[in-house]
Amino acid sequence: MKQIDLFAFDMNCVGHIQQGMWRHPRDRSDRYNTLEHWTSLARLLEDGRFAGLFLADVLGVYDVLGGSPAAALSHAVQVPLNDPMLVIPAMAAVTKDLGFAVTANTSYEAPYLLARRLSTLDHLTGGRIGWNVVTGYLDSAARAMGQDAQRAHDDRYDVADEYLAFIYQLWEQSWADDAVLKDRAQDVFADPAKIRPARIAGKYMSMQGVHLCEPSPQRTPVLFQAGASSRGQRFAATHAECVFVNATSRPAVAETVRNLRRAVAEAGRVPAHLKVYVGATVVTAATDAEARDRREEYERYASKRGALAHAAASLGLDFDAYGPDDPIGAVTSNAIRSNLDAARKAQPAFTTRGFIDRLQLGGRQTPIVGSGETVANELEAWVTEADVDGFLFARTVTPECFESLIENVVPILQRRGLQRTGYAPGTLRQKLFPAGTARLPSAHPARALRA
Amino acid sequence: MKQIDLFAFDMNCVGHIQQGMWRHPRDRSDRYNTLEHWTSLARLLEDGRFAGLFLADVLGVYDVLGGSPAAALSHAVQVPLNDPMLVIPAMAAVTKDLGFAVTANTSYEAPYLLARRLSTLDHLTGGRIGWNVVTGYLDSAARAMGQDAQRAHDDRYDVADEYLAFIYQLWEQSWADDAVLKDRAQDVFADPAKIRPARIAGKYMSMQGVHLCEPSPQRTPVLFQAGASSRGQRFAATHAECVFVNATSRPAVAETVRNLRRAVAEAGRVPAHLKVYVGATVVTAATDAEARDRREEYERYASKRGALAHAAASLGLDFDAYGPDDPIGAVTSNAIRSNLDAARKAQPAFTTRGFIDRLQLGGRQTPIVGSGETVANELEAWVTEADVDGFLFARTVTPECFESLIENVVPILQRRGLQRTGYAPGTLRQKLFPAGTARLPSAHPARALRA
Repeated sequence: MKQIDLFAFDMNCVGHIQQGMWRHPRDRSDRYNTLEHWTSLARLLEDGRFAGLFLADVLGVYDVLGGSPAAALSHAVQVPLNDPMLVIPAMAAVTKDLGFAVTANTSYEAPYLLARRLSTLDHLTGGRIGWNVVTGYLDSAARAMGQDAQRAHDDRYDVADEYLAFIYQLWEQSWADDAVLKDRAQDVFADPAKIRPARIAGKYMSMQGVHLCEPSPQRTPVLFQAGASSRGQRFAATHAECVFVNATSRPAVAETVRNLRRAVAEAGRVPAHLKVYVGATVVTAATDAEARDRREEYERYASKRGALAHAAASLGLDFDAYGPDDPIGAVTSNAIRSNLDAARKAQPAFTTRGFIDRLQLGGRQTPIVGSGETVANELEAWVTEADVDGFLFARTVTPECFESLIENVVPILQRRGLQRTGYAPGTLRQKLFPAGTARLPSAHPARALRA
Repeated sequence: MKQIDLFAFDMNCVGHIQQGMWRHPRDRSDRYNTLEHWTSLARLLEDGRFAGLFLADVLGVYDVLGGSPAAALSHAVQVPLNDPMLVIPAMAAVTKDLGFAVTANTSYEAPYLLARRLSTLDHLTGGRIGWNVVTGYLDSAARAMGQDAQRAHDDRYDVADEYLAFIYQLWEQSWADDAVLKDRAQDVFADPAKIRPARIAGKYMSMQGVHLCEPSPQRTPVLFQAGASSRGQRFAATHAECVFVNATSRPAVAETVRNLRRAVAEAGRVPAHLKVYVGATVVTAATDAEARDRREEYERYASKRGALAHAAASLGLDFDAYGPDDPIGAVTSNAIRSNLDAARKAQPAFTTRGFIDRLQLGGRQTPIVGSGETVANELEAWVTEADVDGFLFARTVTPECFESLIENVVPILQRRGLQRTGYAPGTLRQKLFPAGTARLPSAHPARALRA
């Protein structure tokens, strides 16, 4: 049985994927703005030998439902939302092996500055950083950044390609491995002959500069991506080391995984250098009956309106513009096109009421509910049938959801040889790919620059 | 005797102000890229009851000397340079009262993103954040950010004025004090009627958006500024709560302090709401003789070429274009004009050799050298004669310089009633201005928005 990677899927906010859970008396997600919230979570995840904490992020607020941010603000749907990078250093200080995959946006963050932020994190964590590359999908973000509207969906990936071409140079090429000498006697910290500027003169950006940071343990952070459209998957096949996919059905995910591994090979890379993780929402307890009770209890706090506000933004669809039972026809959307396709596919007679009726625990993901054994069986089926390499566990009632997962499910996965009982030495990249090295494998396009 | 504030003046890099000190056998500044380096510094400074740690920053590399970054890279002159914000959360986790003033640039950081970063830090630290507002001065930064060249000096302040007009709205106005309800029973986290977008349609920027963060303890961080030109001083008088000035001479600084306090009053603010801090380089030991020996020992590691690379960029002047004894005439510079004026004033027959001869400990600042008593006398003279409110202590051999300051000088300042023996409760703003509140005083222009 292959060993898999477990990630907590979280966000520096109150309501992430399962809307309304903050209302539960045992939920502590409104403590997101304290350091102690994050350091205790990090310790917990490392005790459970999680590969890492995946921190989602979004710029802008969800203002598609009713053409207003009111529902998102009212139900704390990913707003308020603090910066995800700034909780990592404190978590790194209280852990040794846990990885941190952090989301940053190629449409809005300046590459020269983001390169320094991620290099700094890679230094401070001893090489435990991943970067989830996103291109954004909210017009509200574009307006807040001084643009009239965001670029069209596929153009955003073209921008991202140029962005990566520049940032790869900063990370992989600007400072040679032997640039830093620290020769105290000769007063030479670094050899200028071994340091050169990164340059791009592209369609979308033209810039040049020496990277501000000396080489960090991984240089380029482990590259995460979640593109589900065909353009997104092409981008992922070119760049990503870890891809996150939605749990539609095992056959559908199996096909996605096959396609991704083939696309990676076609891009000239090694298929084994790609991990595919699937999202999962788990409610577990000592027995199946207790888990079902717990799930029912959680469901009482779910926010359907909050979930609708979230879905409206993700799908680019204002449900409020339709009566509850009106069929929802063609939608022209600048948001995540693949999400809308998936929603239609899941529900052929697509109406607002039908959509709401399918929500579970304030979200669109079908939860896995049961004892440790039951959940472990289900997860194992995903691994064997869909060939996924691990899971991103969304949070429900926090931190109880992660505590119960680590208490009930993790030991069984460990007995079955699926889950690590310790960490491989080295960087996050080496923990995820134990046969590899701290740096990107040579077949990755970023490495071609170093030849 | 008024109580003053002590700050460590540091930067997330090897060589900050005193170039070459990294070569000293007891220096640990090349450990800047580890968390432990920063957490132990923070604990030390809090033990010494420092008001805070001031983290300088610069974007771009110093490439004025010889028209190349070679000297800066060779001598580690503020390059490599990691992101300053990312070391703060780990330091905050091991301290309770120490403040953190961090530099961020209004020419290159997007206001919507910087607002979230600083609000996040203000949340995570419990309100211990200050923002040192800078406008940048390096063409190398402009090129790395995709611009042909930076804006002219005074235009950069005009941009900063618009920037602040927008970011103040995000911090002070977007979320009302009573916006966050956390009403679990009614499923209302925040009241959308109490939340509104910030908007600006200015000469340099047009944007709008709801602030992503709920109100943090201070809302607007304590505002630091170091503008020394007349345009910079006007900007400081309008916005700054804490101004950092260079230690030219006590009479000259006394005049600057008078001018600043008057300018603050003229801007309609309360002069007592302004603190003026002066930079200081201290070498101290148990006795005057030991301190002199130590200074001599340090001097052996100073890098004159590194100091020249630093000065060339600060002054916008390529010393290498002149023979060592050639008089340096008029220079057209896009850099920090006031620095060049000061250099000329200090040395009427302005030559490269003359400039180098005046360097001390690899920098342009005259060190204060002596026993705790001697140094305390000198600092006290600055307070009484120049009316400064505290000091920013540059580092020499690190962390020895701060350890010896806290061992030798701080207890004497405390006995004289100059230095705090404990911290006032509350936020950084309340520790610096004990008569005030966590939020900006009402006469500050940012508060006018809230009326």
